[in-house]
Amino acid sequence: MKVKGKHYRTVWMEGSSVFFIEQNLLPFEFKIYEAKSYKDTCFAIKKMIVRGAGAIGASAGFAMAQAFLEDLKNVEEAKKEIEATRPTAQNLFYAVNRVFDAAQKSANPQKEAVLEAKKIADEDANNCKKIGEIGNELLNDGFYVETHCNAGWLAFVDFGSALSPIYVACSRGKKIFVYVDETRPRGQGARLTAWELENEEIPHVIIPDNAGAHFMSQGKIDMVIVGADRIAANYDVANKIGTLEKAICAKKYGVPFYVAAPTSTFDLNCKTGKDIPIEERSQKEVLYQTGPNKDGKIEEILVASPSSSALNPAFDVTPSELITGIITEKGIIKPYPLPHLFKREKLL
Amino acid sequence: MKVKGKHYRTVWMEGSSVFFIEQNLLPFEFKIYEAKSYKDTCFAIKKMIVRGAGAIGASAGFAMAQAFLEDLKNVEEAKKEIEATRPTAQNLFYAVNRVFDAAQKSANPQKEAVLEAKKIADEDANNCKKIGEIGNELLNDGFYVETHCNAGWLAFVDFGSALSPIYVACSRGKKIFVYVDETRPRGQGARLTAWELENEEIPHVIIPDNAGAHFMSQGKIDMVIVGADRIAANYDVANKIGTLEKAICAKKYGVPFYVAAPTSTFDLNCKTGKDIPIEERSQKEVLYQTGPNKDGKIEEILVASPSSSALNPAFDVTPSELITGIITEKGIIKPYPLPHLFKREKLL
Repeated sequence: MKVKGKHYRTVWMEGSSVFFIEQNLLPFEFKIYEAKSYKDTCFAIKKMIVRGAGAIGASAGFAMAQAFLEDLKNVEEAKKEIEATRPTAQNLFYAVNRVFDAAQKSANPQKEAVLEAKKIADEDANNCKKIGEIGNELLNDGFYVETHCNAGWLAFVDFGSALSPIYVACSRGKKIFVYVDETRPRGQGARLTAWELENEEIPHVIIPDNAGAHFMSQGKIDMVIVGADRIAANYDVANKIGTLEKAICAKKYGVPFYVAAPTSTFDLNCKTGKDIPIEERSQKEVLYQTGPNKDGKIEEILVASPSSSALNPAFDVTPSELITGIITEKGIIKPYPLPHLFKREKLL
Repeated sequence: MKVKGKHYRTVWMEGSSVFFIEQNLLPFEFKIYEAKSYKDTCFAIKKMIVRGAGAIGASAGFAMAQAFLEDLKNVEEAKKEIEATRPTAQNLFYAVNRVFDAAQKSANPQKEAVLEAKKIADEDANNCKKIGEIGNELLNDGFYVETHCNAGWLAFVDFGSALSPIYVACSRGKKIFVYVDETRPRGQGARLTAWELENEEIPHVIIPDNAGAHFMSQGKIDMVIVGADRIAANYDVANKIGTLEKAICAKKYGVPFYVAAPTSTFDLNCKTGKDIPIEERSQKEVLYQTGPNKDGKIEEILVASPSSSALNPAFDVTPSELITGIITEKGIIKPYPLPHLFKREKLL
């Protein structure tokens, strides 16, 4: 996608360094972060300099490649370290294992690790592009779409998952309006999705997370599309906290609720959503907020009662019966109400 | 309720002045605001120096009394001005009309207006106390209760509505734990409810508005209690934006969903929730956040993409079929599923 006229991917590798758009600084500052070692890349994933299902996956693949470049004896240790950065994102485990396995089997593990990691990143971008094409078919001209968190190009290597169909639809001349959930506590909707849509000149408005059902009840939302961090074998979906509430409300008001995710997000080892580990993040993300004051200086302020504590589960699990369809690069899976119409084996 | 050992009401009248706990500054600063004229009091209501159903009602009653004290020829103009400050809160219209009517009928309208306004404030405090007694019966020892926004003593003259049963239960030795919804955009949960509970030494934790359904799905919430800004004749409830989402999710997970409100909140002129006007507030409340930085200096920061706009509906309407019961000072109304068991005429 383009920033000020120049094309960027969210994450890429050059030599032994991995480069990221520094998402913690967006939308107030556009800066590139260079991770010179796999430990740097782990730091970037953990601190959410890079975030989003596919972008985490590609970054983890690159980190694994960096580990091979740095010290062939340490790769198993490094693998564990990379896998411990973010526990919920399936794409992370998918990418780390693919790079590790490909390199282990190769006569030139260092070269192979880098090649495989780059291949994963390219696949991510291509799959997201396909998701856009397939998802576009669901979007009628004039649709009002609600989205939660950021599953745009910043969450992947390029194009995004939930936003990709919107980008394709708009590029084909359809008029789409996007309701952007703020997505507390980290505000990825208000900060990242709104910034992406602004860059792409797509009409949108930020709404508090509390307002989704209100607008649905007024018939103002035609469809909800969200991303996914991990999808279980029964199609239960782990995604950003708050996704479950939107899915329950969408069901109540008969609003189609779609998940958009590449098949690398599926984890068949998780039989149901109950098997997906949910990351608990620091309460500081709830109690404090960061942004520029009127002089443009970035300040961190307290937004809660000073002596109270907070809980901060980063994800929730939406059961498959609330999901109208999962848009993948291979087609649309409809877990409910007609799962027998779809051949899962073919898709995965 | 007590602040640092001293008893306070949220709003009171002395001479021709109305005094408020300045809620915009809480929980970071505890300060009293003096409104010397009815126009000052209108300003305080509009700018949310005072907020919350009952507190707005009492303040509006006092403002009406101030208008009588200031200029007997201007009372009808003043009435319109007071009524235009916050369009959704029923208690405002209830109090303004009561003071106006009582004064008009009296040989000494100025004295009568002040007396009636003070009577309304006393009734509000007493009714909230009764709501606490009645609601306490619903709370089992060991209950985990979720609440949205602030319907505590800060939202009324004293005691509160949704929090009053919790205060009574805890004073009787029951162990109650409170999940406090942050309540974006203004954060009345994180700022006011958490501060109140901290003062009352009641165990609680702040959660993002997005996390309610997640904790309900894990069986961690035994009951939801919220307040109300206006209740229609069919028991549809207008309350802080996000209440509807919680009610839908509570229904999904079989969690009892209670509304606590004095009968002054009922507006029988509204046949259903569709007749209740919903206040649209400034987008600035969504796009900016205010609080102290690490040096304790209050800063206003931008928390969203700089060029994007936001929508900020202040309330939503929860249909009566999602409500387990409405706790009033006269008893518990159960709109659903057995409304025929309850004699509405007697209650209202």
